[in-house]
Amino acid sequence: MSVVTLEKCRENIRKQLDNVVDFWLKYSLDRVHGGFFTCIGKDGKIYDELKYVWLQGRQVWMYCRLYRTMDRFHKPEILEAATVGGAFLRKFARVSSSSGQWKCAFCLTRDGKALKVQRTIFSECFYIMAMDELSRLTGDKDMQLEAEQMMEQLIYWVQVDPSGLGRPQLPGEVPINSLSVPMMLMCLVQQLTEGRGQEVAQKYKELGNWCVEQILQHIQRAGTAILENVSVDGSELPGCQGRLQNPGHALEAGWFLMLYGAQSGDKEIHRTAIRNFVELPYQYGWDKEHGGLFYFLDVDGHCPTQLEWSMKLWWPHCEALIAFLMAYSHTRKPELLEIFSEVYQYTFSHFPDAENGEWFGYLTQEGKVALDFKGGPFKGKSIVKMYGTHISVMFNNLTRM
Amino acid sequence: MSVVTLEKCRENIRKQLDNVVDFWLKYSLDRVHGGFFTCIGKDGKIYDELKYVWLQGRQVWMYCRLYRTMDRFHKPEILEAATVGGAFLRKFARVSSSSGQWKCAFCLTRDGKALKVQRTIFSECFYIMAMDELSRLTGDKDMQLEAEQMMEQLIYWVQVDPSGLGRPQLPGEVPINSLSVPMMLMCLVQQLTEGRGQEVAQKYKELGNWCVEQILQHIQRAGTAILENVSVDGSELPGCQGRLQNPGHALEAGWFLMLYGAQSGDKEIHRTAIRNFVELPYQYGWDKEHGGLFYFLDVDGHCPTQLEWSMKLWWPHCEALIAFLMAYSHTRKPELLEIFSEVYQYTFSHFPDAENGEWFGYLTQEGKVALDFKGGPFKGKSIVKMYGTHISVMFNNLTRM
Repeated sequence: MSVVTLEKCRENIRKQLDNVVDFWLKYSLDRVHGGFFTCIGKDGKIYDELKYVWLQGRQVWMYCRLYRTMDRFHKPEILEAATVGGAFLRKFARVSSSSGQWKCAFCLTRDGKALKVQRTIFSECFYIMAMDELSRLTGDKDMQLEAEQMMEQLIYWVQVDPSGLGRPQLPGEVPINSLSVPMMLMCLVQQLTEGRGQEVAQKYKELGNWCVEQILQHIQRAGTAILENVSVDGSELPGCQGRLQNPGHALEAGWFLMLYGAQSGDKEIHRTAIRNFVELPYQYGWDKEHGGLFYFLDVDGHCPTQLEWSMKLWWPHCEALIAFLMAYSHTRKPELLEIFSEVYQYTFSHFPDAENGEWFGYLTQEGKVALDFKGGPFKGKSIVKMYGTHISVMFNNLTRM
Repeated sequence: MSVVTLEKCRENIRKQLDNVVDFWLKYSLDRVHGGFFTCIGKDGKIYDELKYVWLQGRQVWMYCRLYRTMDRFHKPEILEAATVGGAFLRKFARVSSSSGQWKCAFCLTRDGKALKVQRTIFSECFYIMAMDELSRLTGDKDMQLEAEQMMEQLIYWVQVDPSGLGRPQLPGEVPINSLSVPMMLMCLVQQLTEGRGQEVAQKYKELGNWCVEQILQHIQRAGTAILENVSVDGSELPGCQGRLQNPGHALEAGWFLMLYGAQSGDKEIHRTAIRNFVELPYQYGWDKEHGGLFYFLDVDGHCPTQLEWSMKLWWPHCEALIAFLMAYSHTRKPELLEIFSEVYQYTFSHFPDAENGEWFGYLTQEGKVALDFKGGPFKGKSIVKMYGTHISVMFNNLTRM
């Protein structure tokens, strides 16, 4: 892949991003009750008025990020969407739990009543992401403080006592290190500390190191596998849970780790990130027959019990594109660019909807569209994760070669 | 379809049943800790030692039923499996909840420690089924009493106060009549009253009538649709939840209702069962392109948000076979037998595994095996639902024509 071809990829991604932002600005914002509709059909129609909180948080974060860091999105309608969404999220997402701690709802009615609360940390993660980013844009110190307070509580749930999450302790349960948890916390550390100066960086330094340690525990079987769930002392768990692999998560953790390695100057971590969390998940996660990344696999080749295991989802492909482009931009090894190119071809020939804009999110193993909505309980904007500032910076470096 | 062909169907089903019972007797029973392994690979290997409680209960129920009602299964090894499984279930399935009520676990470790509890009534339903049926076999009055006590609690959760299920009440929630609930309760009423005499029948009569009423509320849109979730006063709910259709559940409710109509002599209910709960779900639920019943649909043609919506599962096909054969045996309308034949062709050419025995449970929309295990968190014995006494009685009637 030449510089010219890379420049074309960049142009295409830029166009897709514009298209996707337009799509969500046009269909998602609820000017009556605030917040965002998140269940959006293939042609932009709202097929359910429920407002999923992960996607409220993500959308606020992305508008702020685009407004704050990219000139062509520094527009009043982006700012308006960010603030209207942020106000709704701040007002309605938090519900007090029986333990007196704050939980965030998973799903709200159109007018902001909590409908469902998950017993995990992820709604809170996206709440923090949104509030931190919005406070950077508005300069609202209270909002920043609230984000940090929610973060403290989240750390308490993860490191001290999870009972506030609402899950009863059962005698057969063993505590688990699930890759998504340290990965999300690490992402939050990067979010909260970015450009805030030494004091804040110092505050979260230990947590960042702890996340790295927790992520590295997922390298198993003499470095030949990344397993999604391990014990808290880093050994393999029995059964399906222990053998589960989620290539998209591994790749996502890979580029978080790569960033950490690059920023901290830790070359060993950086090498491990590329070898074990980028190259390896591609090797076991890529479907040699039909192309694309599997959603779930079993390290011993058993059939996963998740009915959707063989489907091709949009987000692991976004993570793979970021991971391989980053790995290439840091190392200039041509084989990494080759894989980027393969993932790029698959992604852009399968997910975008040329007719109505945005991306389909869920394909069959063979690559046929299986669910045709553009937004759903877990699917929001398709491509924006690939943007943020990282891919833009990477392309800048690469096409200036 | 002639009497001769029907006799062949019967023979085939009989062989399949023998094969399936052999498969589970051989691989599932845990002679060390008691109970049944439920995660069984395509070739009979245990791929996870966890013991799922729905499937403990169902397996106990089935062995008892086979032992008690069919001569060729009146064998010591069937009795042994039933009692070993029943003892494990009775000893370990119940966990006391914070409200002081008994909940059943959803999943146990190999040695019986609770690992997961669902906030629904279904583990309890299968516990009751198993205990009632086993008490008929052993004559254990305490066990029968325990089944009835669990039933009382279940009725309390459904009709009076669901808080003991452990789900926090949230301001955006509205109470829902979900088809699976009155359907399962109705099944339990039939189980608990069968052959027990007038006093027991009288005790559950009101509940049975209530279940029928609740099931009938799912007939919506001027009789053109069965909707899976309706409001408690029987009107349509907004959004995806309100538009959801589950053809397999509708067909299952159909043959429960048909039995109720036949036993109570209520011809109107019987007609409604066939028209609205058997013929109609087939019409909207059958995949005209690839054959087979869809798992989920949206009544307005939106894409369901369940990733597995277009998959073909073994159990809706079993329900359809029972429902159509029963409808035909009650009415002798040839068009019902034609549909039975179509479902039969699809089912027996797609689900059974000729190589290793038992059935695959999960196919893609196109009919390819998508998950190849024989037992999993929700899949137990494939064909036995079709047996019980009902299909046997139906075949007896039909082939004696």
